[in-house]
Amino acid sequence: MKKYDAIVIGGGPGGTAAAYSLKEQGKTVAVIEADLWGGTCPNRGCDPKKILMSAVEAKARVEKLNGKGFEASPEIHWEELMAFKRTYTDSIPSGTKSGIEEAEIDAYDGQAEFVDAHTIEVADERLEAKQFLIATGQRPSLLPVDGQEYLQTSTDFLNLAKLPERITFIGAGYIAFELATIANAAGAEVHVIQHNDQPLKGFDKELAMDLTKHLEEKGITFHFNVDVDKVEAIDPGYRLTAENFELETDMVVVAAGRVPNIEALKLDNAQLEYTKKGITVDDHLRTSQEHIFACGDVLDKSHPKLTPVSGFEASYVVKAMNGETEPIHYPLIPSVVFGDQRLARIGLSEKELSENSEKYHSETMDLGSWFTYFRVNDKGAKIKFVYDEEDRIVAITCLNEMADELINYFNLILEKQMTHEEIADYVFAYPTPASDLEYFIK
Amino acid sequence: MKKYDAIVIGGGPGGTAAAYSLKEQGKTVAVIEADLWGGTCPNRGCDPKKILMSAVEAKARVEKLNGKGFEASPEIHWEELMAFKRTYTDSIPSGTKSGIEEAEIDAYDGQAEFVDAHTIEVADERLEAKQFLIATGQRPSLLPVDGQEYLQTSTDFLNLAKLPERITFIGAGYIAFELATIANAAGAEVHVIQHNDQPLKGFDKELAMDLTKHLEEKGITFHFNVDVDKVEAIDPGYRLTAENFELETDMVVVAAGRVPNIEALKLDNAQLEYTKKGITVDDHLRTSQEHIFACGDVLDKSHPKLTPVSGFEASYVVKAMNGETEPIHYPLIPSVVFGDQRLARIGLSEKELSENSEKYHSETMDLGSWFTYFRVNDKGAKIKFVYDEEDRIVAITCLNEMADELINYFNLILEKQMTHEEIADYVFAYPTPASDLEYFIK
Repeated sequence: MKKYDAIVIGGGPGGTAAAYSLKEQGKTVAVIEADLWGGTCPNRGCDPKKILMSAVEAKARVEKLNGKGFEASPEIHWEELMAFKRTYTDSIPSGTKSGIEEAEIDAYDGQAEFVDAHTIEVADERLEAKQFLIATGQRPSLLPVDGQEYLQTSTDFLNLAKLPERITFIGAGYIAFELATIANAAGAEVHVIQHNDQPLKGFDKELAMDLTKHLEEKGITFHFNVDVDKVEAIDPGYRLTAENFELETDMVVVAAGRVPNIEALKLDNAQLEYTKKGITVDDHLRTSQEHIFACGDVLDKSHPKLTPVSGFEASYVVKAMNGETEPIHYPLIPSVVFGDQRLARIGLSEKELSENSEKYHSETMDLGSWFTYFRVNDKGAKIKFVYDEEDRIVAITCLNEMADELINYFNLILEKQMTHEEIADYVFAYPTPASDLEYFIK
Repeated sequence: MKKYDAIVIGGGPGGTAAAYSLKEQGKTVAVIEADLWGGTCPNRGCDPKKILMSAVEAKARVEKLNGKGFEASPEIHWEELMAFKRTYTDSIPSGTKSGIEEAEIDAYDGQAEFVDAHTIEVADERLEAKQFLIATGQRPSLLPVDGQEYLQTSTDFLNLAKLPERITFIGAGYIAFELATIANAAGAEVHVIQHNDQPLKGFDKELAMDLTKHLEEKGITFHFNVDVDKVEAIDPGYRLTAENFELETDMVVVAAGRVPNIEALKLDNAQLEYTKKGITVDDHLRTSQEHIFACGDVLDKSHPKLTPVSGFEASYVVKAMNGETEPIHYPLIPSVVFGDQRLARIGLSEKELSENSEKYHSETMDLGSWFTYFRVNDKGAKIKFVYDEEDRIVAITCLNEMADELINYFNLILEKQMTHEEIADYVFAYPTPASDLEYFIK
């Protein structure tokens, strides 16, 4: 039976980052991947989505200047765009695996199953290790509706050979918003169905509604307070039904939550605690077994499930495996809904803000007339600051074409607790979003 | 005779910023403007250029994905784009002046002339002040060639009602590059003539040549080592001649340097020292008269002549006028050549680097395969780091679609002397240029 210092279960961004670091420390390391090497992010998550988004952004940049320099909007050719996406995604699994092997880390294909707390079985082979890291991530959850077999997921959407004429998304979180934005820009008739009236949970309600309105103006139809209970195949396409609601469409993509990849791991054999939200860990990312750690999307934890968070956790786990005794301390974590208009936030969570709403006050600023946004005719550009009782910024949400850039600057500014005077003493390239920063911080 | 605590000569960004600050301190203040209130930047500099650039960027975003999602390139409609520009620039002079007046600062139209070191004459009125700030800026210089009357400037280009079929730029500095980029994207046949073989003096030679090649591929023709000595009107257009060189064109824009606006000020009457490069100041921005200060483009100084530098200096002058005894200390100053590919630099000047080249070593990285650039097919993306003997970064130049964003992050990183570990502990929105930062800093 092969024995390792450390076995990492899950060959995604978190798992592979940890594996490389452990290997650099001279440990013997194995990584096990049950599906695509590289994991969700580069294969069917952030990266392919953002490749498709490149065309959406380019088209929107032109459309915003309609009548102000351009008279026609460029048409997105889906098959070409998907072919471009594949030039990136096709080589991810083999490239990830060979990178691991070149670093002399053993790479196993197959489903890992705990035999006991120190033994794993994968592809009929048993492996032992002193320490484990579980980083198996999440997958889209399917809705418990009649006709579930007709539902597709973000994975299917990101691999669509041809764009259907009509696409319906069930769910109104950031994944549904981003994919709906892509499908709409590429020419499909797009519907978004949400069981309640709250799109983009976790983001500021006011700016989330502004983004919703922006997408409605682009042609996306939102259906709120609709709880789909049945999907039937018709010819052509599908019929969705709910109470007092019926819709015909060519593709139904469910983007209504994600579930942790834990069932197949046989966690009980290792006496590991978990919930339906994921693996239970303490503030050292340690499971109920002290030699078994977990990180990334598979955790039952309230932090945003994002690739860089997983990377941050992986980096911490490597230290914890080597005896680090300080609990993990998360930095500020920005979240972004990508699109032609991007919605980005940082700071205290919306949950924290709403639970203690009496302690906070906010200010929303229209940025459409600010030169940075005016010059690209980004009319709906806004930013919202939430302050505590001492007028310190505790959260920022921005909605505009460059919201991700802006939120990354604010990340540095907030972490460094920079004052107005300090920011005003910087000379930033002008005119750029950075050269506006001094006007935001009092 | 009206008497003020402070008179500011020049109603551009530097002068008006200083005037507002001085007024806030309770002083009586006047501002004098001989031409357009607001100065070069918003009327015929950074701002209108960057409005026109919005269309260039949008078109290039689409063109880069030619065959990868788009099949046709959007056409720029010059008249529409200029109309859009005017919706911004038309109200700048009146808006600037009324802003000043609303702040109860006296605004005078006319050419200021020193009568003596404490007295100014403007529009037949004499004004006295305890302190003065000269912030009159620069204007494009005209070439001493035969046929000088046929030359036009960046100001003319930025006001062009119709785009000529053929435009020739004399000079290959950042202004010529930016305007040539705009004219090319808008459909003109564009030539750039430079008297030596060095485009973009002040920028890294290697990446400046890469940008030149990029623009050649876009269709701009560069003529190096050509010293134009004659411009004649022909029908239609103009003929440019130099030794073994002849070119016919419809418009000749000279962008071969700028000269300070000082001749009309009658500086001698106030015994002020100056050179042909501008007003002489000490490291407190004080002229040869201790109650007269100067800032911005009008200075004879080696710092880049940029709007935010002028603003930084204006802010310092206000302190110096109030007795600040510390000399001015400039922060890092980024410089950018805007365009569909942007060239941005920060750190020690190219002059300093070349004068002590034995002390420095550099590394150029191709970024075309990095996800951030790959996804928008920004194939020529590059970054160059210059290190000193202790491997500390002393200068950075980047060439890519997001170079200004990148250089603004590096501004913060370098000023804060952030280490790799510190940057890696940030969670930036992914994938964005900021999430790459940890891979650049060792």
